[in-house]
Amino acid sequence: MAASDSTSVEAAPNLVAAVSESRQWDRIAQMARLGGFTDADGHHGVNRAALTKLDRDSRRLLLSWALPLGLKPSVDVLGNLFLRHEGTEPGAAAVMAGSHMDSQPNGGRFDGIWGVLAALEAVQAIREAGMATKRPIEIVAWTNEEGGRFAPGCMGSMAWSGHRPPDTWNDTRDGDGIRFGDELAALLAAEADIPRRPLGIVEGPRPFAYVEPHIEQGPLLESEGLDIGVVTGIQGSRWFLVEIEGKTDHAGTAPLSLRRDAVQDMVRVINALNALMADPTDVLRFTVGRIEVGPNSSNTVADRARFTIDFRHPDPAVLLPKGDAIEATVQAALTTCRATVTERFHALPARFDAMVQDTIEAAARSQGLTTRRMPSGAFHDAQFLVPVCPTGMIFIPSRGGVSHHPAEYSTPAQVANGARVLAQVLATLANR
Amino acid sequence: MAASDSTSVEAAPNLVAAVSESRQWDRIAQMARLGGFTDADGHHGVNRAALTKLDRDSRRLLLSWALPLGLKPSVDVLGNLFLRHEGTEPGAAAVMAGSHMDSQPNGGRFDGIWGVLAALEAVQAIREAGMATKRPIEIVAWTNEEGGRFAPGCMGSMAWSGHRPPDTWNDTRDGDGIRFGDELAALLAAEADIPRRPLGIVEGPRPFAYVEPHIEQGPLLESEGLDIGVVTGIQGSRWFLVEIEGKTDHAGTAPLSLRRDAVQDMVRVINALNALMADPTDVLRFTVGRIEVGPNSSNTVADRARFTIDFRHPDPAVLLPKGDAIEATVQAALTTCRATVTERFHALPARFDAMVQDTIEAAARSQGLTTRRMPSGAFHDAQFLVPVCPTGMIFIPSRGGVSHHPAEYSTPAQVANGARVLAQVLATLANR
Repeated sequence: MAASDSTSVEAAPNLVAAVSESRQWDRIAQMARLGGFTDADGHHGVNRAALTKLDRDSRRLLLSWALPLGLKPSVDVLGNLFLRHEGTEPGAAAVMAGSHMDSQPNGGRFDGIWGVLAALEAVQAIREAGMATKRPIEIVAWTNEEGGRFAPGCMGSMAWSGHRPPDTWNDTRDGDGIRFGDELAALLAAEADIPRRPLGIVEGPRPFAYVEPHIEQGPLLESEGLDIGVVTGIQGSRWFLVEIEGKTDHAGTAPLSLRRDAVQDMVRVINALNALMADPTDVLRFTVGRIEVGPNSSNTVADRARFTIDFRHPDPAVLLPKGDAIEATVQAALTTCRATVTERFHALPARFDAMVQDTIEAAARSQGLTTRRMPSGAFHDAQFLVPVCPTGMIFIPSRGGVSHHPAEYSTPAQVANGARVLAQVLATLANR
Repeated sequence: MAASDSTSVEAAPNLVAAVSESRQWDRIAQMARLGGFTDADGHHGVNRAALTKLDRDSRRLLLSWALPLGLKPSVDVLGNLFLRHEGTEPGAAAVMAGSHMDSQPNGGRFDGIWGVLAALEAVQAIREAGMATKRPIEIVAWTNEEGGRFAPGCMGSMAWSGHRPPDTWNDTRDGDGIRFGDELAALLAAEADIPRRPLGIVEGPRPFAYVEPHIEQGPLLESEGLDIGVVTGIQGSRWFLVEIEGKTDHAGTAPLSLRRDAVQDMVRVINALNALMADPTDVLRFTVGRIEVGPNSSNTVADRARFTIDFRHPDPAVLLPKGDAIEATVQAALTTCRATVTERFHALPARFDAMVQDTIEAAARSQGLTTRRMPSGAFHDAQFLVPVCPTGMIFIPSRGGVSHHPAEYSTPAQVANGARVLAQVLATLANR
């Protein structure tokens, strides 16, 4: 399997044949029972929050498939779970692949978990095809990617990559007031039988490469009838909180000219931000998704309005100046109220490695699959691997572009295509 | 005290002198202890919701002052409480005066309760001045004017006037799930010692006139340095609920051109409504005070946005066509979402009786007080009396125009002025 240059892949008919569509689909179905529910429209969703009993159960289920194959488990201080396929060359840097196992509260059966199961399927196929690899391959399940229970998401990959210290979120609490640190300690205690490993590149060696398979969460592959998305990168994100303060008044008595109405100034501010964010190319993403008004009484002029801004763009030349202009745009749009603008998250666009992209594209094409290069609009753990090692992602189609919803769906053939491409990519990279 | 025509009043120095500034102020202070609290700014507020133990206590306190004077108590099926000063002419229609004793949750010491205490002070002054009146005078405390615990407000006066059947709100529940009907029954049981009377004009005779003293709840009298507001009427109100339905999407992946963003369509709708409601004369009142967004997540495009409209105007020629245009304005402003518009309250402007206004103005001027005619922006029980009998209101200044807040304040001299004017008005009307 040694490649002649950095992007070529050999055809691997035995390996491709060793990927089992039915086995992978059955595992997806078994995982979907942990936190599974059926919504009012008959869709089968999953609610499996990070560090819950269900999350622990899903990890045990994964181990029940991985350990009989001879894969070696380990867990780090953030609860990131690894399954190692050993390579033939002592000390060679590992190729890593995986994703996360937690879900959104009203989530689907594929987001995250499929990436972990595809990595297992790929490694199992490599082993069952009798292929040795020079480098080890490590399957990874990152802790708390979704951030639905404990915000923000991507805690596992952020700590692993040194992006944040590992104790950053110990005092973060969920909606019931439970501490992240306590739930993490409970997970580690429950998995005391699994060997502890150093925390990522903070305490251990850099991997050779990282590849994350994921559903697209958008409509492009389906609408264009394509099999595989070769992901070029993840757009940058800047999140803001705008808090407007006015003055309450009686809705019947206070003349409009004398009011300091926080709702009206909020509307003016959103109008101004819409103008700032106007983009004829439709690449920019600008969302006001959360609004809170106080006292929120129908016959009282509001003295408080808070709203969030989720602004994303793949190009730093747009992301940085437009994001920097938000504060001044807000202040200029106010008429009678005061406002504070707080940036709560700032992630520059991540560009995936050209070698990994080329390897994915070549593997897919050698299998007769159609591809396109495309950016990811959503966050993924992969973005925190970009500064660490050559990183890439493999997308498969999402029906209707739906994700974070029980209607999320990819076909058995589509997820099998993804696992076959991943198997060939891992085999190729692990022999570089 | 017989007047020579319908608007003249005689000077009544003995009566004016019989009004006690200190006695009234002390009663206001005693009432303010029932539900009293001190807020973070040191203001002394009141939280005395309708039909609570505190409300019952305040009625007993009122009775403890009224009964020794010889006033006759009675209560009707809605819990409206009456204290009757008997007249000299058998069967003559009564003059009524009063207001309500319940408060807003974060309310002040004057809104409502002062109107009842002013009526008591006026009647006590008439009796202590040794004046007989031809007509009886009835002090009234209406049940649940504020609507803060059980919505809507003005239940007592609406049922009394036949505006709504008396059992309309039996199943209305407060925030703890307690039924209005049960709390009303408990009040009536606790006041079984008080004679029951027929319910208003539904079961009994029409009064001769009704006069309600109240704080202004606006800044006009204070800013113009005037003593007494002669209220010309209550502006009309129309309340609407707008519910916008779009579609959730991932804030990072969904192109703006494909979204059905309920927040963005809500902003468009509010812009359009602002244009519809633009009023260079600043008489119109238009308020969006309550907003709810769903799922209200910072990185999810909203599929639901609900907001309230509180629209008021004193002129039906504005209130009716602009209110009727709201639905079409909403629908025309939508781009991708659907919306429903529901009118939840509709009260035409109420015009107070010219004779009552003239009597109030003449009484105030005969006492050397300055006056202005002015509309009321807020609701009052008086508006439901307008179709029943000649009705009017007396306003006194509110410091800073503040009401429904612990900072609500009028001076001892201002509330005494109001009681003196009311005493002369009642004596005049009760001798017509």
